[in-house]
Amino acid sequence: MRGAVMHAAGDVRIESIPDPEIQQPSDALVRVTRACICGSDLWPYKDLAPGEPPRVMGHEAIGVVEAVGADVRTVKTGDVVVMPFAFSDGTCEFCEHGLHTACIHGGFFGNPEVPGAQAEAIRVPLADGTLYPLPVGEDDALMPSLLTLSDVMGTGHHAAVSARVRPGARVAVVGDGAVGLCAVIAAKRLGAEQIVLLGRHADRIALARDFGATDVVPERGQEAIERAKELTDGYGVHAVLECVGTEDAVLTAVAIARPGGAVGRVGVPHYDAIPQAQPTFYGNIGIGGGPAPARAYIDELLPDILDGTIEPGRVFDRVVDLDGVPDGYRAMDEREAIKVLVQP
Amino acid sequence: MRGAVMHAAGDVRIESIPDPEIQQPSDALVRVTRACICGSDLWPYKDLAPGEPPRVMGHEAIGVVEAVGADVRTVKTGDVVVMPFAFSDGTCEFCEHGLHTACIHGGFFGNPEVPGAQAEAIRVPLADGTLYPLPVGEDDALMPSLLTLSDVMGTGHHAAVSARVRPGARVAVVGDGAVGLCAVIAAKRLGAEQIVLLGRHADRIALARDFGATDVVPERGQEAIERAKELTDGYGVHAVLECVGTEDAVLTAVAIARPGGAVGRVGVPHYDAIPQAQPTFYGNIGIGGGPAPARAYIDELLPDILDGTIEPGRVFDRVVDLDGVPDGYRAMDEREAIKVLVQP
Repeated sequence: MRGAVMHAAGDVRIESIPDPEIQQPSDALVRVTRACICGSDLWPYKDLAPGEPPRVMGHEAIGVVEAVGADVRTVKTGDVVVMPFAFSDGTCEFCEHGLHTACIHGGFFGNPEVPGAQAEAIRVPLADGTLYPLPVGEDDALMPSLLTLSDVMGTGHHAAVSARVRPGARVAVVGDGAVGLCAVIAAKRLGAEQIVLLGRHADRIALARDFGATDVVPERGQEAIERAKELTDGYGVHAVLECVGTEDAVLTAVAIARPGGAVGRVGVPHYDAIPQAQPTFYGNIGIGGGPAPARAYIDELLPDILDGTIEPGRVFDRVVDLDGVPDGYRAMDEREAIKVLVQP
Repeated sequence: MRGAVMHAAGDVRIESIPDPEIQQPSDALVRVTRACICGSDLWPYKDLAPGEPPRVMGHEAIGVVEAVGADVRTVKTGDVVVMPFAFSDGTCEFCEHGLHTACIHGGFFGNPEVPGAQAEAIRVPLADGTLYPLPVGEDDALMPSLLTLSDVMGTGHHAAVSARVRPGARVAVVGDGAVGLCAVIAAKRLGAEQIVLLGRHADRIALARDFGATDVVPERGQEAIERAKELTDGYGVHAVLECVGTEDAVLTAVAIARPGGAVGRVGVPHYDAIPQAQPTFYGNIGIGGGPAPARAYIDELLPDILDGTIEPGRVFDRVVDLDGVPDGYRAMDEREAIKVLVQP
C-alpha cells in the first residue's frame, strides 16, 4: 500500500510501504477514509534530526474496520470508527480515570514502532480500548468534524478543561492554529463569557470570531500581555488555553492569568522549564494540561457534532489525496493552510 | 511597646517600637497574646539584603481586640481573634472566591509598611475582613492549635487542596518542617490513604507518623524519587504537597507525581522557573498552590480544632517570651526547634 513517509526535516514522500497486518489478537486493521496533518507533525518537519529512522506519519484518522484480531470484542469488520491519536487499553487505572494518554499499555501512532495514518490503512493496537464506532456512513457530510475527535477538538477541549473553564469565565486562547480554534469552540461550549484570542492571521481570526471569540489581540510579548489585561479589568483572565508550545507563548500565558486562574497547556512544549515560578506562585495560578485524552472526550463531544452544535471540521481549509500530503505539510508549515484533511 | 525587629540577616533585636494606632476607620488594634516564628521568617533571617529597612517581624497571631475604627462592624473590643497572615477586605471579587491572599485592597504583615505581630500589639488593617473571632477565652488550652489557623495549618491545608487530595489518594509531603507536618494533618483529614513524608529529622518524623504519615523517605534527590516511586506501585503519588520552596524540592515534587497527579506548592519559591516542563506536560501533572487563603479556611478547620480531631498546635515545640524571640530564630534556623510559639 501507499503512505506518507518522513525521511528528514522537510522531506515527506509518498511511497510503497508494507501492508499492515494483525500482529496481536487485540489489533484491528482499519482502511483509512480520512486522515489529516497535525500541527505537531510540523515539529519533526522542521527539526527531525539527521540519522533518525524514517516514519509513516499521521495519528488522526477515521476509517472502516477491515479485520480484527481474535480478542477484539467492541468493534467489528465494516464499522466506521474514529481513531484517537493515542492507543489505549481502556481498562488500566489511568484509562479508568479518563487519562487514556497515560495508559500503562498504550502508546502513540506515527513513529518508527507504530506506523501512522497518513496511509491507505493502519494497524490499530488495543482496538477495543482505542477505536470508537461512529453512527454514520463512511462518507457522511460530518466527516471533517468527526475527524477532529481524533485529536484537535479533543485537544482544544482538554486545554479548556485543564484551565478550568467554567460558565461565565473570562478566557484567553494563545495561538490561532487549528488547536487554538478548537479551544475557542471548547471555551464557548463550556460557557465562557469572554474569549480573547491571541493571534494575527486574518483568516483564522475570522473563523475564531465565528466560533465565539469576543476579542482579538494581534500583538505579541509584553504588548500582548498589556492588551489582554486591558480587556479584562486589568486582572487578566480566569483561564488561559495555551495552544502553541513555545517559551514565549507560555510566558504570555502565565502573565495574563488572573490570581486564582489557571493555564491549560496543550501545545507540545519546546521549553525546559515553566517560567515565572514566583509570579505564578504569588498569584495562585494553576498550570495543567498535557496530551489530551481524546478517547475519553468522545462521549461528551460527539453528540454536539452530530447535532451541529459545534463544527470543528471548519478548521480544515484544504483537502488532498495521499499524493497531496507533501505539499500539505509545506502549506501548513508556511501558514498557507490552517489544517489539511487527507482522503487517501 | 516592645517588638522583634529584624535589622539584617541573622540580626533580630527586641526593641522599643511605636505603639500602634488606629490609622483608618477599618483598622483594629489587637493586643497580641500568642504569636510565632514562621519558616518564611527564616528567609530574610538568612538573606535580608544590606540596606533594606528594618522591619517588625511576625504575621501569625492571636490576641484581644483593644480598639476598633469607626467602620469596624464584625469585631469589638474584648474579642479574642485570630489574625491570618494576610489582611483582606473580605468583599472584593478575589475574597468572594475564597482567595483572600489576592485581595485587591489587602496586603501582608511583617514588612516595613505594616509592622508585624512579634510584638506586644499590632494594628490590623481591614479588621472586618481579616480578623476571625474565636469562641474561647484568651488562655484556652487550645491556643497553640488555634494559632496555626493564622498560617501554618491553613498553608498545609492549601497544599492539600491545591494538590487535589481526595479520599483514597496516595500523597507525598515534601518537607518535614511545621508546614509539612500540617500538610500531613491536612492530607489525612481529606482522606488520603497513603502519606509519604520526605524528611529526615527523627523528632519531626515521629510527629508526622502521629499525624498520619504512613511512610518516610529520608533520602534526597534521585534516591528519594526512586524510593517514593517504589512505595507507590512505581507510578508515584496522586498528590504532592511541596512545603519547602527550593529548586531541589520542587524537582523532587514534580518527579514523584503520577500521570494525572498534581503538585501543590506552598513553600515560598526560591527558584525562577518550574523545572521539568516536558515531563509534567507528558504526564498531565498539574501544578498549583501559592500563598494560602488562611482566612478562607478557618470556617472549615476551626471545628476540627475545637473538637480535637486535629492537633496542629503540636508543631510548636518551644515557647518563648518576646526576649526569647532572637534565640527562637536561631533555634529554628539551626533545626533545633520545629516551630517557636511567642507569648509577648
